[in-house]
Amino acid sequence: MKQLSVIIILLLALSGSLCLAQNQPTIIEDFKPSVLNQPGQEYPQVNSQGYARFRIEAPEAQSVVVSLGLGGTRGGTPLQKDADGNWVGTTAGPLEEGFHYYHVTVDGGVFNDPGTVNFYGSTRWESGIEIPAHDQDFYALKDVPHGNVVQVLFPSESTKTSRRAFVYTPPDYYKNQENRYPVLYLQHGWGEDETAWTNQGRANLIMDNLIAEGKIKPFIIVMTYGMTNEIKFGGLRDFDIKPFQTVLVDELIPYVDANFRTIADQSHRAMAGLSMGGMETKTITLNKPEIFSHYALLSGGTYSPDDIKDKSNVKLIFLSCGSFERPDGVKNAAKALNDAGFNAVSYVSENTRHEFQTWRRSLHELAPLLFKD
Amino acid sequence: MKQLSVIIILLLALSGSLCLAQNQPTIIEDFKPSVLNQPGQEYPQVNSQGYARFRIEAPEAQSVVVSLGLGGTRGGTPLQKDADGNWVGTTAGPLEEGFHYYHVTVDGGVFNDPGTVNFYGSTRWESGIEIPAHDQDFYALKDVPHGNVVQVLFPSESTKTSRRAFVYTPPDYYKNQENRYPVLYLQHGWGEDETAWTNQGRANLIMDNLIAEGKIKPFIIVMTYGMTNEIKFGGLRDFDIKPFQTVLVDELIPYVDANFRTIADQSHRAMAGLSMGGMETKTITLNKPEIFSHYALLSGGTYSPDDIKDKSNVKLIFLSCGSFERPDGVKNAAKALNDAGFNAVSYVSENTRHEFQTWRRSLHELAPLLFKD
Repeated sequence: MKQLSVIIILLLALSGSLCLAQNQPTIIEDFKPSVLNQPGQEYPQVNSQGYARFRIEAPEAQSVVVSLGLGGTRGGTPLQKDADGNWVGTTAGPLEEGFHYYHVTVDGGVFNDPGTVNFYGSTRWESGIEIPAHDQDFYALKDVPHGNVVQVLFPSESTKTSRRAFVYTPPDYYKNQENRYPVLYLQHGWGEDETAWTNQGRANLIMDNLIAEGKIKPFIIVMTYGMTNEIKFGGLRDFDIKPFQTVLVDELIPYVDANFRTIADQSHRAMAGLSMGGMETKTITLNKPEIFSHYALLSGGTYSPDDIKDKSNVKLIFLSCGSFERPDGVKNAAKALNDAGFNAVSYVSENTRHEFQTWRRSLHELAPLLFKD
Repeated sequence: MKQLSVIIILLLALSGSLCLAQNQPTIIEDFKPSVLNQPGQEYPQVNSQGYARFRIEAPEAQSVVVSLGLGGTRGGTPLQKDADGNWVGTTAGPLEEGFHYYHVTVDGGVFNDPGTVNFYGSTRWESGIEIPAHDQDFYALKDVPHGNVVQVLFPSESTKTSRRAFVYTPPDYYKNQENRYPVLYLQHGWGEDETAWTNQGRANLIMDNLIAEGKIKPFIIVMTYGMTNEIKFGGLRDFDIKPFQTVLVDELIPYVDANFRTIADQSHRAMAGLSMGGMETKTITLNKPEIFSHYALLSGGTYSPDDIKDKSNVKLIFLSCGSFERPDGVKNAAKALNDAGFNAVSYVSENTRHEFQTWRRSLHELAPLLFKD
């Protein structure tokens, strides 16, 4: 009888450990350095399942935790010190496809991972990691003609300084000195700046690839700082659009039209923005219907038919978000706009949330719809 | 007698402490955030004497040391934990004028200061601090017409990828669609990359200001990665110039001449480089006398008359360094070149060493001497 009990206990223990093993998927040991690492840096690494593995050298530290909030790792990944004094750890689950911001907390201080390049988000330069996506081809650096990303410093009387913008010019811009191009004004989100759409978003490569495939008519993209970082979370109601609207409409657009070969009219000018840049896009396009004809909100709210006074001003409304955001919101809004006679399109990025993979895909979907006359 | 001894001892002690006080200058408490800080960051700070003060939050750390090797702080600035858990410290002496790289060692791990923007040097993105210089006006952002900094991705068959270069175009480039311009190919140093000359060097602002003052005829500057970081210190003898020479001469120059309005001949093409970029400049200009006519080495060695086969190919040789480097070397070399009939100029930057303030000033001195026909 005692022997039977022991056997039963052993069987129970065994089945328990089997259950545990089934709940913990096997991590495939094919980790490679993230493509966003600094030259020569081996860590962080990513495997074919989307797990990320970190290694931070800090031999005398008491605690090292990676903060990377999404895809099963909410709450962070605590690292363990190995025999060489390096802190090593793997995320508890696979991460979602695409780009993620993160940082490292070392003994209570917030630092960046020395292994990676930094990206401006959350009002600071943060570490970035890239989880290879099944559709990464559309934003890959390929052997195709490349457009330029032009840093301009434009005079801003209203803010009494020279402000920076980046202007994407398509590959044929310098070849055909007679061509003129429509322009998309493209805004980043809260906590980010004018570097986000090319660095995190790869907007220039998305355009280069679409143009090489003949899927779009080339256009110019202009990206500048949306002056969003002066407010902190929760203060959105206090955000005053006027200073940025003045910079954009009264200062930047005339500068771009004077210095680049644009088609300088309403019907060849679009505005789009992600997240808080969507809120800016909505406000400015409604305030200035004579300036923009194509509107796009990426994880940045919706328009209702009542928002728009004169339907004839609007050639396209594009609304998008990730499937883990509120896809019904953009779908229903686009349907209501269509029912009211607008040319509205909704797009939902599968298995992504409020992150750049949603916005890369949104730009890729939006670009072929712009300036189709 | 015993009383007298006590008085003498007291006097000696007093004079000793007076001596100490004289050796330790008073630090003026007018510290302000460094101009290179991330938006909203109060630290690091710099005072009017050039002292730097750091504050790093890491409440549970055992040791935080700032590594910033120059100007009386060789060996680093150890920080002390204050009552709030912040690590605070001021450099032991004033720093030299201009830009300095640094990093922070927290419990044995090397991190960047979360307060500052990062700059690519020492083959990694490092923290940067700017000590206001008496002559900072020449590289200040002013209310003058600004040129653009154009990121191009040029095809490179020899390295089987698209490579990045930055092209400075002068303010009138887009206004006068007929103008054509000479070109300076400008190289960074070891451990740096194609971002260094604009980020650390402010080359575009130096040019904008010189052009606004009418001190130079506008020209284009092209900056690309010199492929220097594959070697580590001490391995200079093993450095093979050929891969970079192929990229520069056979791939980048034809691309620039095809895509920008250059004057595409030898007499309107210059090459300059700082430090290891000077070594590259010397080697490539001597290998390819049919390509470049103006040569400049900034803290990057010298030419001797014997190096150059055909004097008629060379319009200018410019040699510079900081006064804390080897100024006699560049002066004597320029004299020997002048004696041999070359148009050679030497420049010594006062009170600077192997750092970007030397090279900013060198570019400022070099630019008016280029393309003077």
